[in-house]
Amino acid sequence: MNDKPTTIVIFGASGDLTRRKLIPALFNSYCKKRLPPQFNIVGYARRDWDGDQFRDLLYEGMQQFASDELVDEEWHSFCKHISYFKGNLTDSADFGALRQFLYGLEDFPANRLYYLAIAPGFFVPVVQFLGENNMVSEEKGWRRIVIEKPFGHDLQSARDLNEAIHHVFDEHQIYRIDHYLGKETAQNILYFRFANTIFEPVWNRNYIDNVQISVTESVDVGHRAGYYDQAGVVRDMFQNHLMQLLSLVAMEPPASFKADAVRNEKFKLFSSIRPLDLGQTVRAQYEGYLDANGVAENSQTPTYAALTMYIDNWRWKGVPFYLRSGKALKKKNTEIIIQFERPPHLMFEELDETQLVPNVLSMCIQPDEGAHFSLQAKIPDSVETQEVSMEFHYQSEFKGSPLPDAYERLLLDAIRGDASLYTRSDGIEAAWQIIDPVISGWENDSNSPSMVSYPIGSWGPKEADTLLERNKHVWRHGCIHD
Amino acid sequence: MNDKPTTIVIFGASGDLTRRKLIPALFNSYCKKRLPPQFNIVGYARRDWDGDQFRDLLYEGMQQFASDELVDEEWHSFCKHISYFKGNLTDSADFGALRQFLYGLEDFPANRLYYLAIAPGFFVPVVQFLGENNMVSEEKGWRRIVIEKPFGHDLQSARDLNEAIHHVFDEHQIYRIDHYLGKETAQNILYFRFANTIFEPVWNRNYIDNVQISVTESVDVGHRAGYYDQAGVVRDMFQNHLMQLLSLVAMEPPASFKADAVRNEKFKLFSSIRPLDLGQTVRAQYEGYLDANGVAENSQTPTYAALTMYIDNWRWKGVPFYLRSGKALKKKNTEIIIQFERPPHLMFEELDETQLVPNVLSMCIQPDEGAHFSLQAKIPDSVETQEVSMEFHYQSEFKGSPLPDAYERLLLDAIRGDASLYTRSDGIEAAWQIIDPVISGWENDSNSPSMVSYPIGSWGPKEADTLLERNKHVWRHGCIHD
Repeated sequence: MNDKPTTIVIFGASGDLTRRKLIPALFNSYCKKRLPPQFNIVGYARRDWDGDQFRDLLYEGMQQFASDELVDEEWHSFCKHISYFKGNLTDSADFGALRQFLYGLEDFPANRLYYLAIAPGFFVPVVQFLGENNMVSEEKGWRRIVIEKPFGHDLQSARDLNEAIHHVFDEHQIYRIDHYLGKETAQNILYFRFANTIFEPVWNRNYIDNVQISVTESVDVGHRAGYYDQAGVVRDMFQNHLMQLLSLVAMEPPASFKADAVRNEKFKLFSSIRPLDLGQTVRAQYEGYLDANGVAENSQTPTYAALTMYIDNWRWKGVPFYLRSGKALKKKNTEIIIQFERPPHLMFEELDETQLVPNVLSMCIQPDEGAHFSLQAKIPDSVETQEVSMEFHYQSEFKGSPLPDAYERLLLDAIRGDASLYTRSDGIEAAWQIIDPVISGWENDSNSPSMVSYPIGSWGPKEADTLLERNKHVWRHGCIHD
Repeated sequence: MNDKPTTIVIFGASGDLTRRKLIPALFNSYCKKRLPPQFNIVGYARRDWDGDQFRDLLYEGMQQFASDELVDEEWHSFCKHISYFKGNLTDSADFGALRQFLYGLEDFPANRLYYLAIAPGFFVPVVQFLGENNMVSEEKGWRRIVIEKPFGHDLQSARDLNEAIHHVFDEHQIYRIDHYLGKETAQNILYFRFANTIFEPVWNRNYIDNVQISVTESVDVGHRAGYYDQAGVVRDMFQNHLMQLLSLVAMEPPASFKADAVRNEKFKLFSSIRPLDLGQTVRAQYEGYLDANGVAENSQTPTYAALTMYIDNWRWKGVPFYLRSGKALKKKNTEIIIQFERPPHLMFEELDETQLVPNVLSMCIQPDEGAHFSLQAKIPDSVETQEVSMEFHYQSEFKGSPLPDAYERLLLDAIRGDASLYTRSDGIEAAWQIIDPVISGWENDSNSPSMVSYPIGSWGPKEADTLLERNKHVWRHGCIHD
C-alpha cells in the first residue's frame, strides 16, 4: 500500500518550517529513492503565489538550509512533483477546492499525508474542514495527518484538541510530531539499552544513583518573545522533549518496536510518575528577559526550569530524575546523564570513599552526538584511581553517514505508516497530567517557589544547584566541557 | 620499619635480568625517592670483577635498556650505593664471607632483601646457605627473599621447592615473583572490576558467554631453544602468567587488597577449577621448531597451547574460559576478552539475531595498554545496528605518566613488605595442580590430542579454532587489528 501514489499536502507552506525542514527532508528522501514511486507535494497557503514562485522560494531555502550540497539536476527532477495551492485555513470552501485540485493532480487512487505546519489555533478548523470536505475517508487510500507541536497548552486543551481531532480522524491516522524523537541519538537510546547486554542489568534503582536530563539552549527568546511569553520553558520543552527523553531512558523494554508496543510502555511510565512536589521545582528568568520586546510587564513566564521527578515502580523507586532546561544558558547541549552508585565496598585501603567518583554514562543527544562513559582506572605508578573516559562519537564512527535531520526520518515514517516515533493521545495527555500541575501550581499556589533570575551565559540559577544538593547530588556535564 | 637501612642482595648479578630489569627498576625508584633513605645494593656473582667494573656494566645496561633518558648526575649518586661481591652460588663459605661483607657495609641493624636472579637449580642451595650462615633471622631487621620463575617444573617439584624454602624461610618472608602481576594493566583488572560499579553486576554466568585469555608472542624460541625445549609453553606461560591473569579476572571480590586477602581468593578460585579435559586442549609446534639449535630430535615440547577451563562455582559454572599462548605467532599481544551474552530478546524486527553482535570488553595488557568496549549502536539513517568501540588507552589518558616497568613496582612492594602481587605457596601449588595433568597427560595419555603444527606468523593451528567452534565460539581480537 505504500508504493501507491502518495500526496503530501503541507498546510502552512509559506512558513519557515516548510523551507527549513520539510522540503529538505523530503528532498533527501527523494534522492535516497525512499519516497513512493509516484508522489506529489502540494503547498497550501494564503500567499498569492504561483507554482514557480513557490518552487523558487523552496530552492532558495534549500540553498540556505540543506546540509548537503544541492545538486541542481536532482532538485529540478524533484520539484516537478511540487505544486502550490492558494487557500485560506479558515475557509471550508477552499478545502473543497483543494480537494478538486488534488483529484486533478493525483493518479487515482492516492494516499494522502496532511502536514499541519501551522499555528496551533488553526489545528481544529483545518481538521474540521478536511472532515467536512470528505478528505479523510480511507476507502481509496490512506489518509494521515501530522500535527506539529505544541499539542495543547495545558491538560484540558490537549484533551479538547484530541477530542476535536478524533471527531474527524481515527487515532491510527494521527501523527503527533515531536522532532526530538526523530533525532538519531534519541532513537539510539533504545538501541543502546536493548541491543546491548551490559546496560539493562544495571539499569535500575540497585545500581543507578540519579538521572539527569538537560536540554540547554544558548539563544535567548529573540524575536519569538511574544509567542514564548505565552508558553514558557515548561510548555515549550518539558511537556514534550524532556518527557520524551525521559520515557526513552526509563521505560520498560517494549515487547517489540512496533508503534503501540513502544507507546504502551511510554504511557505506563508516565502513569508511574509521582505527582511533582512544587517544593522540588525551580523556575527562573534570565536577566533582561522582562525587557525583551513582546514580553508582558511583570511576566511570570519562566525561561528556565528544573525539577525532580520520581518514578514509583519496581525499577526506579527512590531514584531522582532531575530535569532542567532553559534559554540564554552557557552552551547549547542536550544530554542524559546516568550516574551510577558508588561501589559498595572499598577494598583499596589507600583510597577513601570520596576519592571514588561514581561511574557516569552520558548519552549525548546534541550537538556532539554519541556516548561517553567515565570510569575509574588506576593511575600508573600510583595506587590511586583517576576518572578516565571511554567515548563514542557518531561523527567519527560513521564518517560516511552524516546524521539525517529528525524530520527526514519522521516524515518517511509517517508515509510508511510507522507511528512508533510519534506520540499517542494517551501519552500526550499523560505528559500534560504531570506537567500541568507545575504550571498551574506556580501560577496559583502560594507555596510554590518564587521566580528567581540567572545571568545570561550562566548554567542557570543557584537554586537549581540547591535542588540537587539536598540529595547530595550535583549537576553534571558528561558531553561538553564546562 | 621500612625507613630502616635496607640492603638488597642480588644473586646472579652478572646476568641479564640484573642489567635489564632490576637495576633500572631500583634506579627509577631511587629517582622517585621511594627507596629507604639508607640502602645498599650488593651484586653477588662468580665473575672476577671489582665494584667499578660492575657499576660500569650496569651503567651500560642502563643506557641500553632504561626507558627514560639517563641523567648521569642521578646515576652517579645512585651507584655509590652499589657494590659487588664475588662468590659462588654453591659454596657455603662464600655466603659466610658475604655475611661479613654485609655487616661491614650496613649501618647496623639493616633490613635485607635477597633477590634470586639465578637459574632454578640454584634456588635450594642458595636458600640453604643463607640459612646455614644465619642470614635469615629477623631479630635485627626483616629478611625477605624474592624468587624468580620458574617455580618448579611440575607439581611435585614445586612442592619440594616450597618445602625446601620453608625449612629456612617463613612464608611471610618469601616473595615469588610473576612479573605479569606487576604490570599496570594487570593490576588495573582489579581496579576495573572493583573500583567501578557497572561491571561487577554483569560479571558472572548470567551475562558472560565466554572469556578468552591470549598471550601471544611473535618471537620464536631464538637462542633460548635449549631451555625452552625443557619447559614448553605450558610451563613457560600457562602455569604462571595465564593462570594469574585468570585469577584476576575471575576471583571473587577480596575483602581488602592486603596480600593474604587477595591470595586467599586466588587460591579459592584455583581450587574451583574443574580438572581439565585433555580432549579440550590443543598442543602445537610452529613449523621449523624441530630444526632449531638446541631442540631435541622428535621433541614433543609444545610452543603453542590452547585449552578450555571451567570454574565450578556460583559465579562461573558453565562459562568456558579459553586460554592460549604461543611463540612465532602473528603479533605480540596480551589481552583478556570478556564476551557477553547476546541480548535475550530482539525487539528490533528488522534485525535477525545473527546481526546482533554480542558486547565485548577487551582488557589490553600489552602492548597497547588499555580497555576497549565494543557495543551496538544504531547506524544513522538506517534501522540496523553496527558495532562501535569505546576505548581507553593508558598512553593517551596518562600522558605525563609513562607506565613503569613491572619490576619497579614489584621490587618496591617487596621492600615495603606488600606481598599482594606475589604468589603464595598454596597458589603456586594449586596452579600446578591444574596444569600438571595437562603436561603429563600429553606425555603419557594415549587419548590426548596429537601434536599439530602451525605456520610461523599465523594465529596458531586450526585445531585451536575447532576447540572453540564446538561451543559456537571464535577467538577474538579486541585490542589489536588482525
